[in-house]
Amino acid sequence: MPKSSTRAPSPYPVDEWAIVENTFQPEHTRRSETIFALGNGYFGTRGTFEEGLHGATSPGLEGTYINGFYESETIRYPEVAYGFPDKSQTMLNVINGKVIRLFVSDEEFNLLTGTILEYRRTLNLRAGRLDRNVTWRSPAGREVNINTTRLVSFDQPHLMAISMTVTPFNFSDKIRLIAALDGDVTNVTTANDPRSGSNLQGRVVLIQDRFAEGTGGALVSRNKHNGFGLACAMETRFYGPRQTEVSCATDEFSASVTYSFGSGEDQWGPGKEISVQIEKFVSYVTSLDTPDADILARAREIVTAAKASRFPAIETAQRHYVAAFWERADVQIKGDPALQQGIRFNMFHLLQSVGKDGRTNISAKGLTGEGYEGHYFWDTETYVLPFFLFNSPDISRKLLEYRYGILDRARARAREMSHPRGALFPWRTINGDECSTYYPAGTAQYHIDADIALAIKRYVEATGDRQFLIDYGAEMLFETARLWASLGSFIPHKGNQFCINAVTGPDEYTAVVNNNCYTNLMAQTNLRYAVEVAGWLRTEQPQAYEKLIAAIDLNVDELAFWTRAADAMYLPRDEERGIYLQDDAFLDRAPWDFANTPPENYPLLTHYHPLVIYRHQVCKQADLVLALLLLSQRFTRDEKRRNYDFYEPLTTHDSSLSMCIFSII
Amino acid sequence: MPKSSTRAPSPYPVDEWAIVENTFQPEHTRRSETIFALGNGYFGTRGTFEEGLHGATSPGLEGTYINGFYESETIRYPEVAYGFPDKSQTMLNVINGKVIRLFVSDEEFNLLTGTILEYRRTLNLRAGRLDRNVTWRSPAGREVNINTTRLVSFDQPHLMAISMTVTPFNFSDKIRLIAALDGDVTNVTTANDPRSGSNLQGRVVLIQDRFAEGTGGALVSRNKHNGFGLACAMETRFYGPRQTEVSCATDEFSASVTYSFGSGEDQWGPGKEISVQIEKFVSYVTSLDTPDADILARAREIVTAAKASRFPAIETAQRHYVAAFWERADVQIKGDPALQQGIRFNMFHLLQSVGKDGRTNISAKGLTGEGYEGHYFWDTETYVLPFFLFNSPDISRKLLEYRYGILDRARARAREMSHPRGALFPWRTINGDECSTYYPAGTAQYHIDADIALAIKRYVEATGDRQFLIDYGAEMLFETARLWASLGSFIPHKGNQFCINAVTGPDEYTAVVNNNCYTNLMAQTNLRYAVEVAGWLRTEQPQAYEKLIAAIDLNVDELAFWTRAADAMYLPRDEERGIYLQDDAFLDRAPWDFANTPPENYPLLTHYHPLVIYRHQVCKQADLVLALLLLSQRFTRDEKRRNYDFYEPLTTHDSSLSMCIFSII
Repeated sequence: MPKSSTRAPSPYPVDEWAIVENTFQPEHTRRSETIFALGNGYFGTRGTFEEGLHGATSPGLEGTYINGFYESETIRYPEVAYGFPDKSQTMLNVINGKVIRLFVSDEEFNLLTGTILEYRRTLNLRAGRLDRNVTWRSPAGREVNINTTRLVSFDQPHLMAISMTVTPFNFSDKIRLIAALDGDVTNVTTANDPRSGSNLQGRVVLIQDRFAEGTGGALVSRNKHNGFGLACAMETRFYGPRQTEVSCATDEFSASVTYSFGSGEDQWGPGKEISVQIEKFVSYVTSLDTPDADILARAREIVTAAKASRFPAIETAQRHYVAAFWERADVQIKGDPALQQGIRFNMFHLLQSVGKDGRTNISAKGLTGEGYEGHYFWDTETYVLPFFLFNSPDISRKLLEYRYGILDRARARAREMSHPRGALFPWRTINGDECSTYYPAGTAQYHIDADIALAIKRYVEATGDRQFLIDYGAEMLFETARLWASLGSFIPHKGNQFCINAVTGPDEYTAVVNNNCYTNLMAQTNLRYAVEVAGWLRTEQPQAYEKLIAAIDLNVDELAFWTRAADAMYLPRDEERGIYLQDDAFLDRAPWDFANTPPENYPLLTHYHPLVIYRHQVCKQADLVLALLLLSQRFTRDEKRRNYDFYEPLTTHDSSLSMCIFSII
Repeated sequence: MPKSSTRAPSPYPVDEWAIVENTFQPEHTRRSETIFALGNGYFGTRGTFEEGLHGATSPGLEGTYINGFYESETIRYPEVAYGFPDKSQTMLNVINGKVIRLFVSDEEFNLLTGTILEYRRTLNLRAGRLDRNVTWRSPAGREVNINTTRLVSFDQPHLMAISMTVTPFNFSDKIRLIAALDGDVTNVTTANDPRSGSNLQGRVVLIQDRFAEGTGGALVSRNKHNGFGLACAMETRFYGPRQTEVSCATDEFSASVTYSFGSGEDQWGPGKEISVQIEKFVSYVTSLDTPDADILARAREIVTAAKASRFPAIETAQRHYVAAFWERADVQIKGDPALQQGIRFNMFHLLQSVGKDGRTNISAKGLTGEGYEGHYFWDTETYVLPFFLFNSPDISRKLLEYRYGILDRARARAREMSHPRGALFPWRTINGDECSTYYPAGTAQYHIDADIALAIKRYVEATGDRQFLIDYGAEMLFETARLWASLGSFIPHKGNQFCINAVTGPDEYTAVVNNNCYTNLMAQTNLRYAVEVAGWLRTEQPQAYEKLIAAIDLNVDELAFWTRAADAMYLPRDEERGIYLQDDAFLDRAPWDFANTPPENYPLLTHYHPLVIYRHQVCKQADLVLALLLLSQRFTRDEKRRNYDFYEPLTTHDSSLSMCIFSII
């Protein structure tokens, strides 16, 4: 083990059903914004404060993301080659709908000024809600309590609702509450770390329409390059003094509604503790889910209806949705409350992040941040979909339907990669086109085809949903099987075994190798299951079978070839050690000098050139060991132990996809 | 052989000492501009016309390049990794000094208008001169003969001289000749082909000073990012009517001198055939070779002196320089005049392109164009330096001195690539810093270290110049030997032989492989020669030896390790076929389907994704076969034949570095 594996103490008190933060820690703002993010799979928003954080430099990162809503730009390579993707896709940071600013007299509420007398923030995992309670003393000494509740609705995917209650303690000055939509947004641009942010430059969410009337407003934006439209609408409801003045306004980037009230003796003043409350309903509708001409009307309709239904009803619906989820999904861990909290937190974020409409998927950072440009990877089928298999099989199915939706693009990509038949799914994408700009840890990871095929197999086995095979699954299995048939070859020098060369397996510290064992095992499974499903379909659903093989021009020789290839699949082994080799040349590499690698040099990828890493026996993550899990029945207990014992000491776990797999094995 | 190897007929008449073009072919403008380019190693200029080519779209590419004079920009990667170069280097297209515009009455001489009555352009290989003779009828029917001679001086590296003689035939209108310096220049920007142009955007040669006085003028530019300064000065001398008016001017991007004359009865008119002549002297001086504050004064000094010495004297000096070169270097081929012409043309261009000052080297396209951004590669040591070894050893030495000049940067690069000792020379560079942005066909070509080491060995063997070893060579040999010692490892799984993994050999269709045989053979030679030179130095020059090993902290254990590594060097072989394997996995790859590769799909790199190429048995260029040539004495005739026979059918010769090597073998 190159790195310490002791568990860091949690910075949050342990509550089995909540994440609670009792002090405001500006230095951990970005982390807590991510932890307290809300989402529903359609959109998500970071756990930033309604009032924002205004200082010389803001420690936070404002962000709201709509699943599958992206901008494309032409990719500029310093040195391009044939088949490199030409358009980027970046999940956009869109209009911020959370804004509620509070002024007490001329002082603006902002946790970076004044004094925090009381602070508590709670992600309520049972209610699906984010609560905050703050008592603040302004620089001039005015004391006020602010209590907010925020939720992103699961049963109304376009809707977010916020309630803010304000209680002044020691002053009778005028108070203003401004509920706004803020369209002055850009994505994070990073140049130094391939894992975070994008190369998207400047303003691309262009505000085209602004609207404010009565107690509501809206903004309509259009993306600079691909022209996708977005409408964001809000409505507000206010409970407070009758004399309250309401006004609304728009400017270049925003729409707002202002409530001003105070300061009559009979209502306000020291000792009276009379509260006001504002409810804010926000909706997001895009041209990807609604006809472009209707997005504004639809967005306004949603917030008008939400306002009419009132906040408590929305809160109740949310609680019911989440309760039903826990009913199906909860995993109880006795005797370790921190672990219990951790697993529920993770499950809740999975539920919040995953696309449920068959048109979207799950982004690398869910809907909580911009890492990896919001792309969808193999993580879906291998790490996320299995979680939903037994508690929400409909979600698993929708994730596979997404893949079917991009099958034509995967076919086109296979042609571009010189495969006359078959489909090559993109390593990273939003819209189905390959976006990986560094192919050794991108396009070379052909295993994604087999990962998807295995997910289909597991879905069908878990649900018995054979109709899925007929409508979607069989076609994907046949097209992925074709890809393997075209990618691999019977190599005379390897005794005519079927070899798959120049690929990258899951482990990105060994790239573009021959016969990655994981890939070959998974491809073999893909080929065999395709043959099995073809047999079942031909026998049980002859009409559907005939229709499908006509549609994709599949002939019986291909099926025979798949069996032949699967039977002759080359699996690199070292008999002396009794292990599978991660790839042909794994033992030909020099060992990594773990003893002389200082802790600050991890993750290796940010401290060593790829060539340095690639020429050593060092793994970033589970590779062969992942196969031990996914294809568990193929390996004996002894084999598992030997392979685990061999690979664990060589693995840095520099990927978050690693430790979990080793732990299970 | 996948491609036809029959020799295409030359488009130019065969003259053993000249390249002659008898018709103006606008469709081949770019090619002929390259063929008729002039240079002297310090700077070069494309064979464009003095008057330019003015049309709706110009078929040509104006270009003047100063060896080693570049601009740097921050490189933007769509996905960056540790150790990727951060600054580009692009050889700049600088101020055009060739301009002489000719107006007959209001009609401007331009070969894209009017009628060409006579045309002949000659690159005179014996005189080192470009001559052109044109008779042109203007659209309005004026007939005029234009005769130009141009040379870029070998013995005055900063100087170009042009003479233009103008003879009007059938008119007595006013004539104007405008000699100018044109600073309205940019580089070619290309996005689609890694082999041509750069990513340099917009104007980076910023004109800062303009000057015109009497019969001369100058421009001073400064590069936008790195601030390098350039002064370009001109002087003119005119032979013509006494009444000629002379004026000079500057504007934003240019400086010019105008001669206007005509049209008195006694001097001009039909049937008189009286000629005028303008001589133009142009100089280039940069802040890389002259103190920044002095560049303008120095540039003016050069043209003033040149004007004083007169054009014929410069022409004579040029002829003497070139004659001396042919005296030393000429290769005579009997019975094949086209081949004789070809080899002289190539030798002349080598002489024109190569840096001779120890501070510059030879760009990928010489000084004739912008391909590969003007970078220096291993081509220098492997393909160019050997040519000069026996006819101009001083040039060979200067090329090696250039490498010594960048040794510190090569040491820094080795550290960046995680080698605690040694030097890693850049795969492509101008200033010594690595510029390759695609490491599989860039930084991974570690063999450049051994290529340089072998060039040192060959230089010393050819010249007996042991002082070079003491002053420069030994240090480079020791530092490159250290790199191999650190890069390779004794691999237990390979019987503890010394293996060099994750490198790319000369053949760029097989990248990041283990034990590229060429690399291992060359590294072995490098290690052994370093040990040999260390022994010689210790014995014969003990003081120099002690000083050097102290300076680079070399210890005797390292020398022993080099011998051990060289002795145990792993050389992949196939005993059955009796051949060396290009790399460990060469026979594990599937054969390329040459039969079904249409001719238009060559070169493969522009029609197939790198992964498709890398997983097949297909070579772009000589790799193992190059070792057969460079280390000829190591191989028997039979071995050479077997290896040639094996690799030749697998080689596309998509690199210009290939066919020549196979031909020699």
